[in-house]
Amino acid sequence: MATATLLIHCPDQPGLVNTVTGFILYHGGNILHLDQHVDRGANVFFMRVEWALEGFALNGDAIRNAFAPIAKERQMAWNVHLSEKRRRVALFVTKEGHCLYDLLSRHEAGELPCDLPVIVSNHEHLKPAAERFGIPFVHTPVTATTKAGIEAEHIALMKAHEIDTIVLARYMQIITPGFIEAYPNQIINIHHSFLPAFVGAKPYHQAHERGVKLIGATSHYVTTELDQGPIIDQDVSRVSHRDSATDMVRLGKDLEKIVLSRALLAHLTNRVLVYGNRTVVF
Amino acid sequence: MATATLLIHCPDQPGLVNTVTGFILYHGGNILHLDQHVDRGANVFFMRVEWALEGFALNGDAIRNAFAPIAKERQMAWNVHLSEKRRRVALFVTKEGHCLYDLLSRHEAGELPCDLPVIVSNHEHLKPAAERFGIPFVHTPVTATTKAGIEAEHIALMKAHEIDTIVLARYMQIITPGFIEAYPNQIINIHHSFLPAFVGAKPYHQAHERGVKLIGATSHYVTTELDQGPIIDQDVSRVSHRDSATDMVRLGKDLEKIVLSRALLAHLTNRVLVYGNRTVVF
Amino acid sequence: MATATLLIHCPDQPGLVNTVTGFILYHGGNILHLDQHVDRGANVFFMRVEWALEGFALNGDAIRNAFAPIAKERQMAWNVHLSEKRRRVALFVTKEGHCLYDLLSRHEAGELPCDLPVIVSNHEHLKPAAERFGIPFVHTPVTATTKAGIEAEHIALMKAHEIDTIVLARYMQIITPGFIEAYPNQIINIHHSFLPAFVGAKPYHQAHERGVKLIGATSHYVTTELDQGPIIDQDVSRVSHRDSATDMVRLGKDLEKIVLSRALLAHLTNRVLVYGNRTVVF
Amino acid sequence: MATATLLIHCPDQPGLVNTVTGFILYHGGNILHLDQHVDRGANVFFMRVEWALEGFALNGDAIRNAFAPIAKERQMAWNVHLSEKRRRVALFVTKEGHCLYDLLSRHEAGELPCDLPVIVSNHEHLKPAAERFGIPFVHTPVTATTKAGIEAEHIALMKAHEIDTIVLARYMQIITPGFIEAYPNQIINIHHSFLPAFVGAKPYHQAHERGVKLIGATSHYVTTELDQGPIIDQDVSRVSHRDSATDMVRLGKDLEKIVLSRALLAHLTNRVLVYGNRTVVF
Repeated sequence: MATATLLIHCPDQPGLVNTVTGFILYHGGNILHLDQHVDRGANVFFMRVEWALEGFALNGDAIRNAFAPIAKERQMAWNVHLSEKRRRVALFVTKEGHCLYDLLSRHEAGELPCDLPVIVSNHEHLKPAAERFGIPFVHTPVTATTKAGIEAEHIALMKAHEIDTIVLARYMQIITPGFIEAYPNQIINIHHSFLPAFVGAKPYHQAHERGVKLIGATSHYVTTELDQGPIIDQDVSRVSHRDSATDMVRLGKDLEKIVLSRALLAHLTNRVLVYGNRTVVF
Repeated sequence: MATATLLIHCPDQPGLVNTVTGFILYHGGNILHLDQHVDRGANVFFMRVEWALEGFALNGDAIRNAFAPIAKERQMAWNVHLSEKRRRVALFVTKEGHCLYDLLSRHEAGELPCDLPVIVSNHEHLKPAAERFGIPFVHTPVTATTKAGIEAEHIALMKAHEIDTIVLARYMQIITPGFIEAYPNQIINIHHSFLPAFVGAKPYHQAHERGVKLIGATSHYVTTELDQGPIIDQDVSRVSHRDSATDMVRLGKDLEKIVLSRALLAHLTNRVLVYGNRTVVF
Repeated sequence: MATATLLIHCPDQPGLVNTVTGFILYHGGNILHLDQHVDRGANVFFMRVEWALEGFALNGDAIRNAFAPIAKERQMAWNVHLSEKRRRVALFVTKEGHCLYDLLSRHEAGELPCDLPVIVSNHEHLKPAAERFGIPFVHTPVTATTKAGIEAEHIALMKAHEIDTIVLARYMQIITPGFIEAYPNQIINIHHSFLPAFVGAKPYHQAHERGVKLIGATSHYVTTELDQGPIIDQDVSRVSHRDSATDMVRLGKDLEKIVLSRALLAHLTNRVLVYGNRTVVF
Repeated sequence: MATATLLIHCPDQPGLVNTVTGFILYHGGNILHLDQHVDRGANVFFMRVEWALEGFALNGDAIRNAFAPIAKERQMAWNVHLSEKRRRVALFVTKEGHCLYDLLSRHEAGELPCDLPVIVSNHEHLKPAAERFGIPFVHTPVTATTKAGIEAEHIALMKAHEIDTIVLARYMQIITPGFIEAYPNQIINIHHSFLPAFVGAKPYHQAHERGVKLIGATSHYVTTELDQGPIIDQDVSRVSHRDSATDMVRLGKDLEKIVLSRALLAHLTNRVLVYGNRTVVF
């Protein structure tokens, strides 16, 4: 079923839900899902509403044009997403394939409403995985000499494939600020710890060293500050003294797969709204 | 802050959210929380909306009178709850005190917005607990001869204390149909298993016998069919071969406390809507 | 590192740990892991001990011959597993590929210490998946006419591939008693519910109908009684009224993958001891 | 049943389990539980063994004297605990009663094998709670002027009550180094975050600010470095954008109660072995 989804945040004020639902009703839309939230501390209103486009009087740009004056009056930050326009996602990987295989098999099973036109990697290890699923694999090695040019190369590649979402599926390179700024809140990373604990390299080894009883994984949008972006999803798994750092790495892979795919699905279904450095996940 | 909460379910149809929010807006209310859900299979619309009463033009009965024609036109099953009217809750117990102490200490800490005018028990074991918290304790022993009269005695007791919610905090007697029918969807039980597994007596022993790796607890509204009422909340805890049935009983107590108190809090804050034999917990 | 693992259960009696560790010590072994458990109710002793074979005086059959008299005297049921002898696992599938892909990618990553010589299916849907990983795929359709012969065909196939463990990775056919008896406690199934709740077909639909707040998955050894075999592992995931039966199916896939792979890993590392209809998972 | 429990750690070497179990067997003991672990990285052996004292030839000090030469030869750090000698636990609280009530009701239900001779607080808020359970309440206010003397006062109080374990059940004062050194690995704290995330004050507010999707609680032994001691147990609970910092405080209370009581029970049953800054929890 073709649907439209409106994501809004604005200063809280009376009549917001009524105004938005009135707009949809007026043009003949039937609401499928509506969720709103008010952050009392910040006095900010958040809303996600999805409606069926069958029988709706407006289409793509006409929806935007008709809604713009309402949004302006209410000082809304807003976006309309049409289910017909599937997102195009680039997967960035290095050597470890667990997240990649998980995403590819979910995609093949129809769980992820997106296209996967390209896989990018700084190593060639996962080229066979890409080939098995018939997805172009681009090898962009990162060395001292190539580092300068890699950002431009990646941006050009994203443009060539009309990418709008980038998933770092255990991509073990720091993303450069220029690339991040070109895709604000569109680059999703999986960090293998329960952030904000164990920022940076080798988090499972840090966790083992500290003697924690739970390990975690965190999926977040990438910002220019390392591992500090808005968190989309997290989960944890119990460990004990019996688990070496190597065991934690193995157990953590399951967390990483699940947390990353949940975060990506929330993103693809327009359920994530970023506000400041936090997310509202409807 | 004084608020009103409207719980609605009705056949799905266009304009429902707009109509309800229009009603609130028209009388000067500011929406604090709104949540809706449509069960596509059954084509039923569910909604919970809570708004501030400060500045709202109507009060208690006037709200009901003003909303009734709208509800009738839309074939709504509905209820309005005012935060000022605290629920009056009777706690039924037998011998085990973990749920009772948990509820009493939460109540004392201000976590449960209700009054606790009476504790009822078929044994005297927990009388000291009631006395410590200054709550009247009524001992209604259930024997072969008293059984017939106990239903009438309990109903009279509930009326005398103006009770509207009954919590079976590990009350180990079967509730009679007459009592259940007098309090539809107002009697909350905690069953010490992950329903529908292990219905009936000694569920932890059943669980141990079956060799499960997780034990559970389930809080549900009581219906005339044993352990079959609408589920409000559930949770589980990991066990292993090291845990005897006795260990499971001990571990299960923590589940029971938490699941029962979560279910009660959801009930007291008007977040539970029963539909058929299921709940929508907003 | 080459190791041997001894799994024992017998009537509890003084000196068991001392006797077994004395045997290992006497022949020059260094214990890596030792775990024991006594079921007080049944007065049964369980033990798993793993030791390094480097410097150990005995090898394969010699270990068995040397230990047999000790075992006989103590009335032990026992087994020795050598890490050098990798298990050979057949995967049975039908149409859904999530468990298959998960196991194949774990195997490729070196997480599962076993060989995967053959994939068997009653449909051809997952043939491409098998081919991508270079594993022979045998299509044995089950129809009214072939049903009689399929058991013999499967047993012959298992023998031809020297299979010792069979994983039903969402194989949607009932396994026949003759096949089950040929592989006692060697056939691992994943059932898509929290057993013993929702035995049989369409458990997620049953779960949705009942209105549960958690869904589960259970991995167990297959016995001739449907979904009643010894449970190896279970897990659950939270759901709400927002989740349709279809959503539960999707969420359940993640549970199934993880629970099945954990159970298989426990089996492959000789950590599962079946006793009666329960397991001790060390 | 009267039992003895031996906790050991020492350099790993062949024959350790055999030696210890030989000692118990020789004197007529029957092992109830045995668990061992080897940290391969550090080459350290850990063991907990509990045996029935009925029929055992030695008692309290005689056990220690007989075992000492064995321990010396093997360079063991070790301890023997007798179940007959119940630990004496002091509870330190401030204003919040949820952990206190939880521990008191568990103790009354017989879940905690210890004596509770005294409750200490820097405020008088929880005096009524102590009185309800008939436990002496000592008010030791901490002010700029009393601070210097409070350590001596507390140590004297612990000695007067023959305390061997101190539980900080949401005691909101920094413990002084002199007190900590007097009770090494005997002071158990509950910190209301998933350490090492959110060390220090107001962790739920820090968690809310960071936008995490899970909150946690951590129970650990107190060392002189704030919130850095060996972790005994941890757990987490899911939160969302709907949860304000105040909601997190409320949800966190359930975590704190459960994690603290689990840690205390592990300590009281001699299942915690501290090594470096980590714990082995058998």
